[in-house]
This record gives sequence, structure tokens and C-alpha cells, in this order.
Amino acid sequence: MSEDYLLLEHGSGGRAAQRLIRDLFLPHFANPVLERMDDAAYLEAGPGALAMSTDGYTVDPVEFPGGDIGCLAVHGTVNDVSMLGARPLYLSCAFIMEEGLPLSLLERLARSMGKAARAAGVLIVTGDTKVVPRGAADKIFIVSTGIGRILAEPAPGGARAAVGDAVLVSGQVGEHGLTILTAREGIRGFAGLRSDCASLNHLVEALIREIGNIHVLRDPTRGGLATALGEIAVQSGTVCRVRERDVPVRAETAAACSLLGLDPLYLANEGKLICILPAAKAEAALTVLRRFPEGRAAACIGTIEAPGAGTRSGQTVLETAPGGRRLLPILEGEPLPRIC
Amino acid sequence: MSEDYLLLEHGSGGRAAQRLIRDLFLPHFANPVLERMDDAAYLEAGPGALAMSTDGYTVDPVEFPGGDIGCLAVHGTVNDVSMLGARPLYLSCAFIMEEGLPLSLLERLARSMGKAARAAGVLIVTGDTKVVPRGAADKIFIVSTGIGRILAEPAPGGARAAVGDAVLVSGQVGEHGLTILTAREGIRGFAGLRSDCASLNHLVEALIREIGNIHVLRDPTRGGLATALGEIAVQSGTVCRVRERDVPVRAETAAACSLLGLDPLYLANEGKLICILPAAKAEAALTVLRRFPEGRAAACIGTIEAPGAGTRSGQTVLETAPGGRRLLPILEGEPLPRIC
Repeated sequence: MSEDYLLLEHGSGGRAAQRLIRDLFLPHFANPVLERMDDAAYLEAGPGALAMSTDGYTVDPVEFPGGDIGCLAVHGTVNDVSMLGARPLYLSCAFIMEEGLPLSLLERLARSMGKAARAAGVLIVTGDTKVVPRGAADKIFIVSTGIGRILAEPAPGGARAAVGDAVLVSGQVGEHGLTILTAREGIRGFAGLRSDCASLNHLVEALIREIGNIHVLRDPTRGGLATALGEIAVQSGTVCRVRERDVPVRAETAAACSLLGLDPLYLANEGKLICILPAAKAEAALTVLRRFPEGRAAACIGTIEAPGAGTRSGQTVLETAPGGRRLLPILEGEPLPRIC
Repeated sequence: MSEDYLLLEHGSGGRAAQRLIRDLFLPHFANPVLERMDDAAYLEAGPGALAMSTDGYTVDPVEFPGGDIGCLAVHGTVNDVSMLGARPLYLSCAFIMEEGLPLSLLERLARSMGKAARAAGVLIVTGDTKVVPRGAADKIFIVSTGIGRILAEPAPGGARAAVGDAVLVSGQVGEHGLTILTAREGIRGFAGLRSDCASLNHLVEALIREIGNIHVLRDPTRGGLATALGEIAVQSGTVCRVRERDVPVRAETAAACSLLGLDPLYLANEGKLICILPAAKAEAALTVLRRFPEGRAAACIGTIEAPGAGTRSGQTVLETAPGGRRLLPILEGEPLPRIC
């Protein structure tokens, strides 16, 4: 590209926009569906039901240890589609960008998106670019929408958590939220922190193929593990009991949380999943998860129970390491804006 | 809603976000797919190929004569899906909103989106809300993504324009762009101007069912009719010849354009389509289009030709009313940012 900064006409549907798309995005997203460049993409999707999910990404800073807003927009939406027990196939990406954005940054983000899409095995098939005047948006927002083919019937869903089920998590929690917080605020001294952002579709497909009958899959993003479990308890009318000592937390995360007064159970994750399934299948599911680099630290962290003495439907109860008990409420709001 | 203004926690994945979605959006978007509230929507799509399209809406002002950013986000994406000869079925919507946005405005936009979706016969099946701090975005941006079922094979596409084809337009051009420009700049004295924004899927379906073999469908949004025709000429390696006297332009539009020094051929439309098909079918197609309120002023405005004396592949030539000729280049950039 000869231009160094994004101009208003790059988002305006004319020649400059076409050049931006052809020269900057297409080389990284290359696939025959996208290259048709019509108003809509023509997709072969095969028979059966579909999953569709959309997410807006507004993370600040746009580049952070372990990732950037580009790969996050791929991983996050791939994961949301996967959580319905689906194989993600196609992504669309809409960019809302601020005039003056360095094209070198945009190129890095496009490369990162292309790499993430190839790793997940999905095609970016259609997109849109809008440029708003300086000050009308902060750098770049990306909205990605994914569609996939449902692999399991009935599809996993929050309402299907059943009394007696085991609650698994695929790895250590809290890393993405902590990384964004420390990167944005310029908090130093936690050099080991990196976002966990990763696509989990390969783990999900292995779970479904080898284990079957997964009741719930959920990626604990905003609000963290505690909020995701709370939502599942509400959707299913059950109580979720979690053993604190079994929740995997990396030593660096625990140390930083302790110093900063944060709870890793409430920090966002972008490469972790919760899997709830009949307890008899828990060990086999852990074995599957641990085969993948992203699932090496998978653990069984709790159980689904009926409301009973001292608990109400929709609650999540934490058995603390010292032997106490406390409720884990759903967050009123994620304490950190623009976490993803 | 008890709150009057949007807060950061409304976009943060916790209880406040759930309340916003349940109390403000769901009543207007109501359908059983959306109400499951899982990470992804479960869709029945039937057999055959799909069309997928995404668009970001950043229009300023967010409410304007004839529409608002909410219904525009439905109409625009319904139309993009339709242009591939598809029946739009499902929409996703992602909202990126500025802290402090009045909830009453958001409620009006949600109502407008719900109404537009019902009119088009599509379901809003999944969504996302993000709230960014004051100043990080200007009021509200919406990204909608649509999927639909391809009705015609081969699907219409810009590359299929063929020598001898007729070029139709479904109605008067330039109204959306002119309305936004005058509304934003506070230009008074043009009281009759209204955006034409409307969903065209019912027109497209009737064309395909009753006429068949449509070569190209395209909605001339940013860059207007002239830019859309130019893109088709490039994609198909042909020349598009347009008769200025046959291009429908409302009298109010022509008068305002004349006063403001604007060309209606380059102003955005949000409820018009270009239809290119074998000339022998042009009259029948016009009869179909004119049955619909949105197509009452449909007209045949030109032909697709081979490059020849004085023309090159990819050019659009305007035969002006006084008997002259001029080229209609593709815009370098839409002159007006945030038109849609």
C-alpha cells in the first residue's frame, strides 16, 4: 500500500475501499468465496442445522501480550459457534475504523486474523469496512459473525445442566482479563502474563466425537468462570458447586491477582471452555481435553446439584480452600470495560 | 427500564447486560431462537446453498427522515443477502454503543429494527452488546449479518452481466444520500426529502420466481448508481451504457441536487436495486417490480455492451439528456462519510 494512514475514503465503497480490501485484507484472508467480491458470499453448507453467533470486539489496547483484536475476533467467534456443539465453517468480519489508523497496524491485524482463521480451519468469506472521522471511534472495532454445522443433537445448551453432572474447565483461568488490565494500565512487573486467546473448535469436535452427550459447553469470557457458571445455574434451575482448590490458576496469575486484589474466577478468558456432562464420562472427557495444548491443564472443578439446604436454584457455591463456603454471584457488570 | 442512560456495565456480560437485552431488545425482536440466550443461535436452514453478508452501520445522524440506524441495519443487510438471489432468513446484530446513550433512543432503535425485521420476514436470532467509555465511539454503531437460502442457480453475480442485457433500476435514485446530507448539515428548505430505506427481498423473490435467470442484482448504496454500475462493468469486463433521461429521479431530489451541486447518480440509495437480465425479459421484469410499492417507479435505464469504438472494458457511459456522452467513473471515495 502506498498510503500510510487510513483515510475516510478507505471506508466509502469506492475505489479506495476496493484497493484497501484487495491489497491489505485479501492476501491474508485468501479464499475463493471471498474473492468473488459480490454483496454476499455464496456458501455450500451441507445438510442439517446451523449455529450462528456474532460478537463485537472493542478491546483496548488493540495489541497485547499473546494476541490482538484481530485474532481475538476470530478466536472469540469460533469459540461461540463451537459452544453449540458445532463445527465453525465461515466467518464474516466488519471493521469500523478511525480515520488516521496506521495501515501498518491494520496489516498486522489482518495477518493475525488470517493466521487464526487458518488454524481454526474457517474461511473469512465476506466483510465490510467503514471509516469514521477522527474521534468518532477509538482506533478499530471488529464485529465477526460465524456460522457452523451442528455436530451433536440435542445441541449443548445452558438449560441442559443436570443434577449429578460434573463441571470441567479446559485450563487455567483469568489470563486474558489480567493481561488486558495490566497492559492497559501500564502495570509492570508481571512479565509472564499472556492472553490465553485461542480457538477451541478442535477440542469441542474431539469431545463430541469421542465422548458424546455433552450437556453444556460455555466459554467463560466477560465476567469470567464465576459469571458463566452462574448463568448456567440460572438457565438450568440448578446449583453449581465448585471446589476452589481444583480450579486451575497459573502461579503468575494467582500472584498478580493477589497483589492487585483481583479474583481470577471473575477475570475474562478467551481460550477456555466449561464442559458439563454426566459424571461417569468426566475422566474420559479430561483425557480428550488434555491431548490438546489448549487443554493440558483441564480439570474437574465441581458438580451440578439440586437446590437444597442453604442453596437456591441459580446459585453457584464455592467451597474455599480453607474449608469454608461462599456464594459466587453473577457480576453486575464486568469491572473492566473493553476487555474483548 | 429504570435507568435512563446507558452505563458501561450494560455492555459487560453481567446482570446489567442481561437486563438490557431482556427488557429493551427482546420485546421487539421476540422469537424462540433468540430467547434461548445461548452463546450461539440454533438454526434450521434446510438444504441447499447459503448466502451470507455483513455490514457495519455508522450513519450520522442516527435518526433521519424516513428511517434510523436501526431499520437501516435490517434493510441494508436483508438487501445484500437478497442480491445473491437468496431469501434472507436470519440476522445477527452487534451493537457498539457509547456510554451515556439515552435508553429511550436505544428503545426507539430496537423497535424500528423489530418492525423492519417483521416486514422483511427475517428473524433476529443472536446478538451482542458492547458499551465503550464516553468518547470512544460516537453514539451507536450496529453491525448486522444475514444468512439466507439461495433461490436461483446460478446465483446472480456482478460477473454475469452479458452483452445485450438490459439494465433496470427499481425506482428513483439518490434519496438516502441526499436526506442524510441535508439532515446532518442542517440544510433546510427541502422538506419533502426522505430516505428510501426499505427491504427489497420480496421484490427479489418475485423476480426470481416469475422471471428467472437474473444475471445481476445489486443495491446501489455507497457511491450510488454510477459506482455500482461501474463495479459491475469491471467484474464482467463489459461496458454499461445508461440513458440519463430514463433514470428515475424524484423532482424534489433533482431540485435539491441542482441547488447543492450534487449528482443523484452518485448519491447512496438504501431501498433500490439494479437488475440486469436478458433484454427480452426486461418488460416482464418491470411489470413484476411495479407491482410493489418500492418498485412502482422501476425503469429500464440502459444496456450492457461489448467494449468498442471509444469505450473500454469496465466503463460506464452516460448518454446525457442533451444528446452528449460522458463517462461515469467509479468514485474514488463516497464524498460523505457515515452515510450508512
